Amino acid sequence: MAAINENYLNLQGSYLFQTVARKVREFEATNPESKLIKLGIGDVTQPIAPAVLEAMHKAVDEMGDAGTFRGYAPDLGYDFLRTAIVENEYKKRGIDIEADEIFVSDGAKSDCSNIQEIFAQNDLVAVCDPVYPVYVDSNVMAGRSGAFDPEKKLYSKLIYMPCTEANGFVPDFPETKPDLIYLCFPNNPTGVAITKDRLQAWVDYALKVGAVILYDAAYEAYISDDALPHSIYECSGAEYCAIEFRSFSKKAGFTGLRLGFTVISKKLKLHDKSVHALWARRHGTKYNGAPYIIQRAGEAVYSEEGAQQIQAQIATYMNNARYLKTSLHDAGYTVYGGENAPYIWLKTPDGLSSWDFFDLLLNKVGIVGTPGSGFGPNGEGFFRLTAFGTYENSVEAIRRIKTL
Amino acid sequence: MAAINENYLNLQGSYLFQTVARKVREFEATNPESKLIKLGIGDVTQPIAPAVLEAMHKAVDEMGDAGTFRGYAPDLGYDFLRTAIVENEYKKRGIDIEADEIFVSDGAKSDCSNIQEIFAQNDLVAVCDPVYPVYVDSNVMAGRSGAFDPEKKLYSKLIYMPCTEANGFVPDFPETKPDLIYLCFPNNPTGVAITKDRLQAWVDYALKVGAVILYDAAYEAYISDDALPHSIYECSGAEYCAIEFRSFSKKAGFTGLRLGFTVISKKLKLHDKSVHALWARRHGTKYNGAPYIIQRAGEAVYSEEGAQQIQAQIATYMNNARYLKTSLHDAGYTVYGGENAPYIWLKTPDGLSSWDFFDLLLNKVGIVGTPGSGFGPNGEGFFRLTAFGTYENSVEAIRRIKTL
Repeated sequence: MAAINENYLNLQGSYLFQTVARKVREFEATNPESKLIKLGIGDVTQPIAPAVLEAMHKAVDEMGDAGTFRGYAPDLGYDFLRTAIVENEYKKRGIDIEADEIFVSDGAKSDCSNIQEIFAQNDLVAVCDPVYPVYVDSNVMAGRSGAFDPEKKLYSKLIYMPCTEANGFVPDFPETKPDLIYLCFPNNPTGVAITKDRLQAWVDYALKVGAVILYDAAYEAYISDDALPHSIYECSGAEYCAIEFRSFSKKAGFTGLRLGFTVISKKLKLHDKSVHALWARRHGTKYNGAPYIIQRAGEAVYSEEGAQQIQAQIATYMNNARYLKTSLHDAGYTVYGGENAPYIWLKTPDGLSSWDFFDLLLNKVGIVGTPGSGFGPNGEGFFRLTAFGTYENSVEAIRRIKTL
Repeated sequence: MAAINENYLNLQGSYLFQTVARKVREFEATNPESKLIKLGIGDVTQPIAPAVLEAMHKAVDEMGDAGTFRGYAPDLGYDFLRTAIVENEYKKRGIDIEADEIFVSDGAKSDCSNIQEIFAQNDLVAVCDPVYPVYVDSNVMAGRSGAFDPEKKLYSKLIYMPCTEANGFVPDFPETKPDLIYLCFPNNPTGVAITKDRLQAWVDYALKVGAVILYDAAYEAYISDDALPHSIYECSGAEYCAIEFRSFSKKAGFTGLRLGFTVISKKLKLHDKSVHALWARRHGTKYNGAPYIIQRAGEAVYSEEGAQQIQAQIATYMNNARYLKTSLHDAGYTVYGGENAPYIWLKTPDGLSSWDFFDLLLNKVGIVGTPGSGFGPNGEGFFRLTAFGTYENSVEAIRRIKTL
């Protein structure tokens, strides 16, 4: 008789953002006239940039004409997009990545969760704590996590790297030697960036222990400090040990359009096997490419007009971030992040648990955030706010928080 | 040290259509002035229907206005699309499927290849031979296939169900009891449909042995015989044992837009665990929804105008199918399929191998088809042609084939 993948039974509760969404639905059902301010899930609010809209309209028209209609896209992405990505994200920063090392996809979430498939079942996985839950859950589903300890709130076979106030939310090398290391900078959820020196040290460490770094750089567009690395490939030797994930969701507001890409250098080999070839095979077998219209939208992000419009969007969000951070600090909160990332990571007041603070904000002042403990035990006592709301909502949120 | 998923090394050659594409590229490089007729990969050629284009333009405009902008889609699809699907694909046929049993995705290929993840590692998998390679390869990657026998060209742990002239290309129940059974009707590659009685017998068999049927109905829109089932849920009891995959790619020419859906009844349970809940969890954790614009495109397929335009497209392709089938038959070929599916399955002449016939057609008359042996050992000696070309190309293809 058919049986299920029992690893799924090992997953803890439902996905964090689904739980948040359920609590919000319940609140709205009993408080239909409430005006919630949603600074929880990292969804953007500004409309798609005009240059991108124009490119999509044009692509839609092309799809309606037999002479310009496009069927199946190339598995790994259209050359026009892969080339635009390489030129603008890598060559301009002096990074030697080729167009055929770019794998276009429907988003970093899919790629971050699917990447573990191409690695061995018994590879040891290291994650930050707190961490974006997708890295953990995808490895639980694949059977790499071991049993969950309900007291410690940790899986027995995962290697947790605490990110705390003490280490500035940048992890130290773990005691147990990992095979796969998930890093995300600028970080979700803490909003903290990594310096080039620290990232280089991680690359050196990975090369030394033979680990692969799975580097989620979904928020790199929010870096304002010129000294910080946008790509792990700015570090020497990273092409031999790192895979990088990028997203158009946060860079250009594509959360509803779905576009991202993964970079794997052809130099990355494990026991002489090309990791690039494995991922190409996975892509070719299990995926059929991002929609042509959306790939044209991605290309337009790199046009002169598009780039300017998108810079303005990011500036708006980062203005919110600065406002939230400064105001919360002035109101007596301890606040991290928000300078090179669209996330504010604040310490809950009066030693409240993250979920208690969530409930307080939701029920007393109608603000939705994300409880830090949802990202791991070291997130307990913290709370994530996003800068993706409007400026007006950010101001109103601060006004309400001050009434607590 | 990190290691790769060694199951990938167990994959045979590269993905069939990638090999075909490579041979075509090589031919075109050395014969730059050749005018190839491509009846190989099942890609469509007609542009997107006007009603669908209109819906996409409208959705693009909505994405450009802060008041109507949409960020992250609901994980499982927008209600407007799930409702339209249920009404038009199921309720109209008297099938009791609810909107929340529809999982919208970026296509049947992704879903068909990902679905195995939610089942146990040691579930026994049955596939037809010949078969759409994605079912096999995704299970090889997951480690369910056992070793490949290069003489038999079969994996040791997969259960193969021969589809031959003798059984009319509809498989008999296998000797070994399977846990997961992949069925595809109307079939890719043979183009043969299944009767409701035979499909009901498969459902009864699955219920008896406790197997789950993974039913790929990507080509149901091409059924012309009213007595044939469009959905496995037309069979009694299927909601307890079957998962159905549907695609907009072939129904409405969405190969370049990417949209499909999977249906899992909430009644489908294994050892009391809801399979629906597992897939919902998988979707929520590893996927972020199909683009809003594309989901609106899908909805427009069910508008009165859209439905008429799409029927006309299908009629055009099926006119090609009839023409190809009749002409090949008249030219002395033995031909199957092509009546309720857009594929023609022909016996190679003079006992040629499938790849030899592929090379002959490519090099002598500039026609690209798909070698039957690429779909499995029982496909050897057969060849697949698609009806997705233009009528002019179908006529020209027949003219050229007659010169052989």
